Amino acid sequence: MKGYYNGNLNDTKMDEVKLGKTKNTYIQWLVTRENNAPYAMRKFTIKPEGFIQMHYHDYVETLFILNGECKTYVDDDLLNLKKGDYIFIDTKHRHKIINTGKEDLEFICVIDYPDNMDIIPVDEE
Amino acid sequence: MKGYYNGNLNDTKMDEVKLGKTKNTYIQWLVTRENNAPYAMRKFTIKPEGFIQMHYHDYVETLFILNGECKTYVDDDLLNLKKGDYIFIDTKHRHKIINTGKEDLEFICVIDYPDNMDIIPVDEE
Repeated sequence: MKGYYNGNLNDTKMDEVKLGKTKNTYIQWLVTRENNAPYAMRKFTIKPEGFIQMHYHDYVETLFILNGECKTYVDDDLLNLKKGDYIFIDTKHRHKIINTGKEDLEFICVIDYPDNMDIIPVDEE
Repeated sequence: MKGYYNGNLNDTKMDEVKLGKTKNTYIQWLVTRENNAPYAMRKFTIKPEGFIQMHYHDYVETLFILNGECKTYVDDDLLNLKKGDYIFIDTKHRHKIINTGKEDLEFICVIDYPDNMDIIPVDEE
């Protein structure tokens, strides 16, 4: 068996993210456990005026911002993130991500694979 | 305890990679198991004429190319990679990475944490 798996963003399937009120958000799965990785690397694109609604899950995640700018809430904290910023969000901590710029917000997001992969949306006022 | 950890590339310590004949190569550790991640996200910079010599290890790795271009060898295969390309390299498969461009080669590299984290250099003719 070949010792590697490779691809390019332009050739990787892009799906719209469906999670509650989430808007203008797209995901590409680059590398997953199907490739024998114990983690998944995904690439997200949030168009202007788009956002991922508040939610939490058992898996941890690390975001690395490739392009654009956003507000990221984790629990009650607010962070303004831009290209070159990264953030690790620990298991079960609620978070949301809002594109605050005029460009696409693009980031890499690496997660692990705990037993429970459910995503729990959190309604806000 | 805070549910997140964050930083920026410009504020993250950069170390030269010392591995056999490896040249002009620098690593930054963005997120590690010390942050409660079961993986590590690192950022590599290989300057023009730089390369990482052939080697292998038990940990798997995924490269995501941010900038520049390179030749990557995995076992006896050669891949030409550029911005937007990604590659997963499975456990124990030997590989090397050569900056073939005039710009810095920059990539994200995500690894797991198997019991044995040793890096074994492979001498070539």
